[in-house]
Amino acid sequence: MIMHSPVKKIPVGVLGASGYAGRELCALIARHPSLELAFATANEQRGTTVRLGGSPVTFVAPDEAPLGDAALVFAALPHGASAEWTARARAKGARVVDLSSDFRPGAPVQGAIAAPYGLTEWARPAVAGADVVANPGCYATSVLMAVLPYVRRGLVAADAPVVINAASGVTGAGNSPKRELLYAEVAEDYRAYAVGNVHRHLLEMRASVRDAGGEGVDLLFTPHLLPTARGILSTIALPLTAAIADPMGPWCEDYANEPFVELVRETPALRDVVHRNVVRLHAAVARDVQRPTLLLFSAIDNLLKGAAGQALQNANLMLGLDEPLGLPA
Amino acid sequence: MIMHSPVKKIPVGVLGASGYAGRELCALIARHPSLELAFATANEQRGTTVRLGGSPVTFVAPDEAPLGDAALVFAALPHGASAEWTARARAKGARVVDLSSDFRPGAPVQGAIAAPYGLTEWARPAVAGADVVANPGCYATSVLMAVLPYVRRGLVAADAPVVINAASGVTGAGNSPKRELLYAEVAEDYRAYAVGNVHRHLLEMRASVRDAGGEGVDLLFTPHLLPTARGILSTIALPLTAAIADPMGPWCEDYANEPFVELVRETPALRDVVHRNVVRLHAAVARDVQRPTLLLFSAIDNLLKGAAGQALQNANLMLGLDEPLGLPA
Amino acid sequence: MIMHSPVKKIPVGVLGASGYAGRELCALIARHPSLELAFATANEQRGTTVRLGGSPVTFVAPDEAPLGDAALVFAALPHGASAEWTARARAKGARVVDLSSDFRPGAPVQGAIAAPYGLTEWARPAVAGADVVANPGCYATSVLMAVLPYVRRGLVAADAPVVINAASGVTGAGNSPKRELLYAEVAEDYRAYAVGNVHRHLLEMRASVRDAGGEGVDLLFTPHLLPTARGILSTIALPLTAAIADPMGPWCEDYANEPFVELVRETPALRDVVHRNVVRLHAAVARDVQRPTLLLFSAIDNLLKGAAGQALQNANLMLGLDEPLGLPA
Amino acid sequence: MIMHSPVKKIPVGVLGASGYAGRELCALIARHPSLELAFATANEQRGTTVRLGGSPVTFVAPDEAPLGDAALVFAALPHGASAEWTARARAKGARVVDLSSDFRPGAPVQGAIAAPYGLTEWARPAVAGADVVANPGCYATSVLMAVLPYVRRGLVAADAPVVINAASGVTGAGNSPKRELLYAEVAEDYRAYAVGNVHRHLLEMRASVRDAGGEGVDLLFTPHLLPTARGILSTIALPLTAAIADPMGPWCEDYANEPFVELVRETPALRDVVHRNVVRLHAAVARDVQRPTLLLFSAIDNLLKGAAGQALQNANLMLGLDEPLGLPA
Repeated sequence: MIMHSPVKKIPVGVLGASGYAGRELCALIARHPSLELAFATANEQRGTTVRLGGSPVTFVAPDEAPLGDAALVFAALPHGASAEWTARARAKGARVVDLSSDFRPGAPVQGAIAAPYGLTEWARPAVAGADVVANPGCYATSVLMAVLPYVRRGLVAADAPVVINAASGVTGAGNSPKRELLYAEVAEDYRAYAVGNVHRHLLEMRASVRDAGGEGVDLLFTPHLLPTARGILSTIALPLTAAIADPMGPWCEDYANEPFVELVRETPALRDVVHRNVVRLHAAVARDVQRPTLLLFSAIDNLLKGAAGQALQNANLMLGLDEPLGLPA
Repeated sequence: MIMHSPVKKIPVGVLGASGYAGRELCALIARHPSLELAFATANEQRGTTVRLGGSPVTFVAPDEAPLGDAALVFAALPHGASAEWTARARAKGARVVDLSSDFRPGAPVQGAIAAPYGLTEWARPAVAGADVVANPGCYATSVLMAVLPYVRRGLVAADAPVVINAASGVTGAGNSPKRELLYAEVAEDYRAYAVGNVHRHLLEMRASVRDAGGEGVDLLFTPHLLPTARGILSTIALPLTAAIADPMGPWCEDYANEPFVELVRETPALRDVVHRNVVRLHAAVARDVQRPTLLLFSAIDNLLKGAAGQALQNANLMLGLDEPLGLPA
Repeated sequence: MIMHSPVKKIPVGVLGASGYAGRELCALIARHPSLELAFATANEQRGTTVRLGGSPVTFVAPDEAPLGDAALVFAALPHGASAEWTARARAKGARVVDLSSDFRPGAPVQGAIAAPYGLTEWARPAVAGADVVANPGCYATSVLMAVLPYVRRGLVAADAPVVINAASGVTGAGNSPKRELLYAEVAEDYRAYAVGNVHRHLLEMRASVRDAGGEGVDLLFTPHLLPTARGILSTIALPLTAAIADPMGPWCEDYANEPFVELVRETPALRDVVHRNVVRLHAAVARDVQRPTLLLFSAIDNLLKGAAGQALQNANLMLGLDEPLGLPA
Repeated sequence: MIMHSPVKKIPVGVLGASGYAGRELCALIARHPSLELAFATANEQRGTTVRLGGSPVTFVAPDEAPLGDAALVFAALPHGASAEWTARARAKGARVVDLSSDFRPGAPVQGAIAAPYGLTEWARPAVAGADVVANPGCYATSVLMAVLPYVRRGLVAADAPVVINAASGVTGAGNSPKRELLYAEVAEDYRAYAVGNVHRHLLEMRASVRDAGGEGVDLLFTPHLLPTARGILSTIALPLTAAIADPMGPWCEDYANEPFVELVRETPALRDVVHRNVVRLHAAVARDVQRPTLLLFSAIDNLLKGAAGQALQNANLMLGLDEPLGLPA
């Protein structure tokens, strides 16, 4: 027998709810045992009702959002637009998990508000006590979860770059209509972009690597666009300062009790992680190269562990709830 | 006005014609102005008639193939099976382009027959005079066409590996029915395989790099399986001995007059190369890393430039025909 | 506050658990609040452990399945193999929901066991009391849920066939490795099959239509294979005996309180129903044709409402549980 | 030996060259032995150079197109915009093949210019002598090529509709950026649209059926959107006035010598026709229905036989060239 006593749910809001991450947030909130959706904003689609997480959600215009009704607001707005809305929500007393890059390390618009970088597994105390949390980028999440344990142990060489090739499904590019994202353009295609080590997520990746003791470690990051809806796989060639006995050892130690980290013996596939809030990690020693080198593989769902899922981990912590509550493992 | 005088066509055969590369070969031959198909073998599908290149092709059992009727035979057989059939074809007087790995550098079954490695643009004299040519692997073609010009100029550093991440469409895995290649398994998925620097094509890549003067250059190669039918994109981080002014300079010099090499200013996409016998190349300097490093991008159709197309380039040379004859540029 | 008191779960087994429907059943059971998995059989993959519904499942050989430990067994075996296993399970005291066609109307191997046809919404009393239930076919479910309300009201003409065009994702064809189901064959393709009104599901569709009073009503059914993993959409041209005022009226009356039937104003898409145990229905009057004709659209997830989901609806009824328990709406 | 004497090519222009049909036209012209591209217009993308059919094409603004330089102009403009540009081209002396619906039967903007309906196989004399030809719609081509032989023999019953279910790849919807055509929306989805027998192509289909003697024959047409780039498959339930012995007999008689019509024994697949200018047809008798009914299957590439390819058939006729010249069969 299961008994449900009446639960007073905590109201939360979503700014920018019509994008892919925003919709995922609404769906997670709809199924969350302790949260309820106070409002969901969408400018262009205001007035529209959609079904998210099994529940109908009607988008309201941003200016009509009752910011003060929410204990916490998720801001899933375009980069550059979040700073202002975060300030507005703060003024109404709401705490904020911001999914844009506006408050992340290196962001130009960071402004007066200090926000810890919410790579949850590495930032729990800071997140729990923060009024504003900068939710990490999707690529950054997949990369940092893989490399930080090696960096903080001083295992990563500085005289050759960490070569990161990542591939993401198209939801990572948002749902604004662009010709290059049409089905007939993306299907059966594959290409790199942001070529030359210039992707925006490098700023937050470098900052986290430096903070973990990796001063001098170079990152060389090339993202690719996959003909899939969801998922990110990062393939990382990690130059070592010396050979190590157990390639997955640092992860085993650091992530022993993490509910959302999966250490696996085979190469992870997008199929293993989509629709789940996990990062799946695998490491192998690169054979037949003179310099000791590891190959790391890190797979996430870009919309869950890479966006809305991690945002909810952070929100749960901020609201004093169990961190895994309402998250599909 | 166009006049066609009657042309005596040269008969060629295809061993292993029911696989993806074999079918592509039959289609190319059907449209070739100077070749005609003498036979096409397929064991399991013998007796079946399919339409390839606009013409009907009926597969015969290998033992029934009139090897002696062909001036040249394309062997598109599984690795390990080619050596014997090549010997049989040679005994009947036919020359052979072998698409398997049996005669490539490092192959265990290479045996008594010497066969030049037919990376066409780099091996024309040897190919033209050979009785047997070892057609390169698809990944090897995409990688070597990109890196050889840098290697032969001594530009590639030896104290850090060349990190190669490649992604291929599923036709690269052949058309034998395997559960992991089913539509419902591959669609919306992406993963690495042959993890740890162990892919078979490394043997031929290393041999070619060494022959080009790259003694000591390490290759670290990780292939991935894409949810597309065709195409390979290789993304290569190339550590340099010193910064260079023009990242694409070596290609411009070596490939100035090559009909099947495209040097482009933007990042190449699979869409640009599928159904064409070209390699499309782009290079960029990696910013903000201490070691001078280039990023090379190389895209091909795995079934054309990576298999049947390059095989036909080689066959054209062997038969004294214009190298580009019958090939879609 | 939510309190969970310890629950005694009911053990159920899955025969044929490695197929797509079998895996879906295991996943549903893993998440079900009142059921637990007693065993899951798979012949070829016995000994393999996979993750289904967030829980590890190890397949056992069929002969090792402790049939007597299960209160109820789901048989997701190939057509023809279910009858024998159903008898074995019955002999051990287990009740059976059979997902094959073996016990459906018109099946040649139906044998001595009487099994009601478990189109749940139309067969609740019979299902609840049955020892064996014949779970409907996926196409049949999508079609019958749409047409039965019109048939039972005598609205369907008999002098012109009900023309049904259905399209299914490839999981409907199972996960046995077949060349024609390879990614490179299915992607970017689309075709009809079982052409000429000969698909097996016609038997059960005709029987249900007849039982609903549709003697003389002809069904003309053509299935198609879609390049998607999941989902069925049936598009049905329904000739009427007379024009009707409200095209969706019969559904509104018959399905007013059904948790798994969605009546919608727009044309249903696979996207709306995959990963959900619902049938989504829409109807429109065909304009500019002399004979009064309706167009019915019926979308389901072939693996849920079309297989495992409906099987679980039936099992819930048989076990005295709430019908929707454990099912994603 | 093949000899090419210098050929004076005929200049032709393309209006609306950046859309999918326009690009296909440019590619066909680039490979055509007797035509050359005089200009290609694109408003939004003017100044852009793309590679089509192996040749670079630079789009010019429509107002800058040298209409008078072209012997013939292909108008691949949006519906409603073609009439004006056709008049302009005519004023400069160019003949026009118009791919929009503006001059097709039933079009509101048909205006003063009379244009035969260019379903090539059925309209050769009229097309050859016309100054303006209305190129048929893609769906209409696939349907009419299938049904006209039955209609003109009086074989089609009038008291039950011809039920046509067609499915098209997304290039049929054009390449304007729309959210519902994004990869992440279309992949793994499938749905009907223009529901209720209201699609624009019904006008031209009805007119052609009537002209072929099918007065009173009702068409009930429902299009669907496929997750593929290209291709249309129409599945047609054809009610007969009486049973016929050979279901494909009328086609065999009418299409005996047609180079672009393929009559096949198996059900046609998109895979068989994409990138080819053919219509592939199959017919089967519907079993177990009281009214004699045929099932017709008609597959085309929507951009070739359904648009640019048929337009070139018509242009070849108008210019006195061999009809199949430059077309991939």
